[in-house]
Amino acid sequence: MSDAAPFLIPRGFRFGAAVAGIKASGRPDFSLIAADAPASAAAAFTANRVIAAPLIVDKENLRASGGKVRVVAINAGNANCAAGQAGLDAARATCTAASKVFACAPEEVFPSSTGVIGVPLPAGKLAAAMPGLAARLGRERDHFLEVAAAILTTDTVKKTAYARLEGQGAGEIRIAGLGKGSGMIHPQLVPHATMLVYVLTDAAIEPADLKAFLDPAIEMSFNRISVDGDTSTNDTVLLLASGASGIRVARGDRRFQDALMQVCASLARQIVADGEGVSHVVELRIAGARSDADALRVAKAIAHSPLVKTAWAGCDPNWGRLAAAIGYSGAEIDPERIDIRFGDLPICRHGGRAAGYDEAAAHAYLNQDEFSISIDLHQGQGSCVFWTTDLTAEYIHINADYST
Amino acid sequence: MSDAAPFLIPRGFRFGAAVAGIKASGRPDFSLIAADAPASAAAAFTANRVIAAPLIVDKENLRASGGKVRVVAINAGNANCAAGQAGLDAARATCTAASKVFACAPEEVFPSSTGVIGVPLPAGKLAAAMPGLAARLGRERDHFLEVAAAILTTDTVKKTAYARLEGQGAGEIRIAGLGKGSGMIHPQLVPHATMLVYVLTDAAIEPADLKAFLDPAIEMSFNRISVDGDTSTNDTVLLLASGASGIRVARGDRRFQDALMQVCASLARQIVADGEGVSHVVELRIAGARSDADALRVAKAIAHSPLVKTAWAGCDPNWGRLAAAIGYSGAEIDPERIDIRFGDLPICRHGGRAAGYDEAAAHAYLNQDEFSISIDLHQGQGSCVFWTTDLTAEYIHINADYST
Repeated sequence: MSDAAPFLIPRGFRFGAAVAGIKASGRPDFSLIAADAPASAAAAFTANRVIAAPLIVDKENLRASGGKVRVVAINAGNANCAAGQAGLDAARATCTAASKVFACAPEEVFPSSTGVIGVPLPAGKLAAAMPGLAARLGRERDHFLEVAAAILTTDTVKKTAYARLEGQGAGEIRIAGLGKGSGMIHPQLVPHATMLVYVLTDAAIEPADLKAFLDPAIEMSFNRISVDGDTSTNDTVLLLASGASGIRVARGDRRFQDALMQVCASLARQIVADGEGVSHVVELRIAGARSDADALRVAKAIAHSPLVKTAWAGCDPNWGRLAAAIGYSGAEIDPERIDIRFGDLPICRHGGRAAGYDEAAAHAYLNQDEFSISIDLHQGQGSCVFWTTDLTAEYIHINADYST
Repeated sequence: MSDAAPFLIPRGFRFGAAVAGIKASGRPDFSLIAADAPASAAAAFTANRVIAAPLIVDKENLRASGGKVRVVAINAGNANCAAGQAGLDAARATCTAASKVFACAPEEVFPSSTGVIGVPLPAGKLAAAMPGLAARLGRERDHFLEVAAAILTTDTVKKTAYARLEGQGAGEIRIAGLGKGSGMIHPQLVPHATMLVYVLTDAAIEPADLKAFLDPAIEMSFNRISVDGDTSTNDTVLLLASGASGIRVARGDRRFQDALMQVCASLARQIVADGEGVSHVVELRIAGARSDADALRVAKAIAHSPLVKTAWAGCDPNWGRLAAAIGYSGAEIDPERIDIRFGDLPICRHGGRAAGYDEAAAHAYLNQDEFSISIDLHQGQGSCVFWTTDLTAEYIHINADYST
């Protein structure tokens, strides 16, 4: 859907990015998304108990504003996490600065930060850059893409997704999402990254209904991916509805839910594909688990196993490592009932090497940029689909020299 | 203790190794430890639900023999795991072959395997090599070291530890342990790699009492280490007591317990230090947790975080990654009470950068082969000490091309 739809930006929003001097590289590191009027907002944040200051402020603000957002202010290069009272002060100073520039209440501002943890955020740099940036925001796709670029850290590509729904009359509803995330990617958002995702729509939706749309979409997208198993302190997904299409969407609308789901799934897969040092994207299809929760346990044990992930980096069909990870996942299993396939290739049957096992074919299959591994536990009806990556020497190089 | 004690081998055992042709390298891959008479035995096995065939047979045999072992038969190069009925048949065939050569019951044989998973073990090669090897077993340290060498896989050094206890009269009790393990190291033995560890003593101890000595020793040693977080299907610790010293040790003997603990702790630390691709050995000292279990949760979250481990590889004092791992560990924490020290250096205080934080000093401290990180959660009295490693590009190289 995101491929077929034209890249139409939801109405009611303006976008832009600037150099505030947070990133040492001197690249754009400060973005604004401004709603023409207070937009309905629904958000989900990391389950990590160490929570970055902007997330604490975001939660307070959403409560105080009744789920309304006028301005999203995003900086890259500094996560504003583990910085104590100074961090909270910095996040609130950003809200105050934005409230003056945009003539709104401070609690209608939604600050986000991503980057290094434990270094105080120089909020003054954001405040200084804000008036100039605010004066040149725009509504076009190029402006939207400015933000998609400026929020990146170790990402190598921009991540965007689009959907469009024809209205019953002449109108249409537009949805557009942008996100970042490459390492420290194992989002566990509550009801469930540093993954930052902003999804915008011009549908008219009440905040409570917006949340009802967002939660299931997150569960089947961002909560089903992992690059390195590290759950960030800053993961945030924000969904804003401006209502500028003039089309009202009621709770439970199937078409809107599906379109939102597809935008989220597309962004989730783009984040995995751009994972730090990734050379293979892996789809895990777990079936026959005692429960969906057990299926997810198996998927996560595999997705977080350094031995499995390094084998993938080498296109090594060492399925014994998969069996070992299944075994310690905590899921209810019977080792002698485990079946494993690489794509359509039989690999493991009844817990042992499959009769038709062909090592050369298995190796060739794994020597693709993307591949799929199916596991049937033959324990019940539980299942899940999960996206993850290999673990390469490049990941080590990227992360062994990040903050210095 | 292991350094100070002379390398005396417990009496009542013979040792040796040979080339059976399991390893492709053509190096010794088959070892025997033979007790002169049935030795008291206590063992602990992996908590992985996918369990290698020899472990299943070992459990059956220990039950059938009432905790007595005459012969330990260890092969490297093939884990005999996930090989279905053929795997069980292979393990039992090894017992039968040993029972004929050593004129004992098949259930007095303790087979062990380590190596690649999912490939049928050619047990005939072990049976063929057995008579020749049995004929030239010996009691000396060189024979003991033959076994310590032949059980290795990706290990780079032999791992042995020794202890000696003076008897009340003229005699002495000797303890000697040997082990292997380098990757797939996160032993969770029950009550708790492929880690294989064999500890021998010539004390006279009943099997049930032996188990009472072994369990706490394991809990404070092998269950407190992790290289890569992958819990193997084959992890085994076996403690044998020949009684050949003529000295009886009763349950609860503090000196024997301490000596055994030190032998196990020494082997555990040797395994971590020889972890695949390891350039730094890290001691984690967690204090102030709500419970010991919570302290262990924090230690394991840190020990299994790719971002923390890669930062260590780069001597990068990026303590924010530690804070993030603490945050998602599942332990009860208050982010604003977390203190972190590298050795004696203050790093994080009350959840933020410590006042005396000196990045250059922190970097220099981490640029050592071994270092210690202390974390105080200020939540309660729970604590633990845990040993782990960094994650290097060399680990990836070793594991991306293992079975092929």
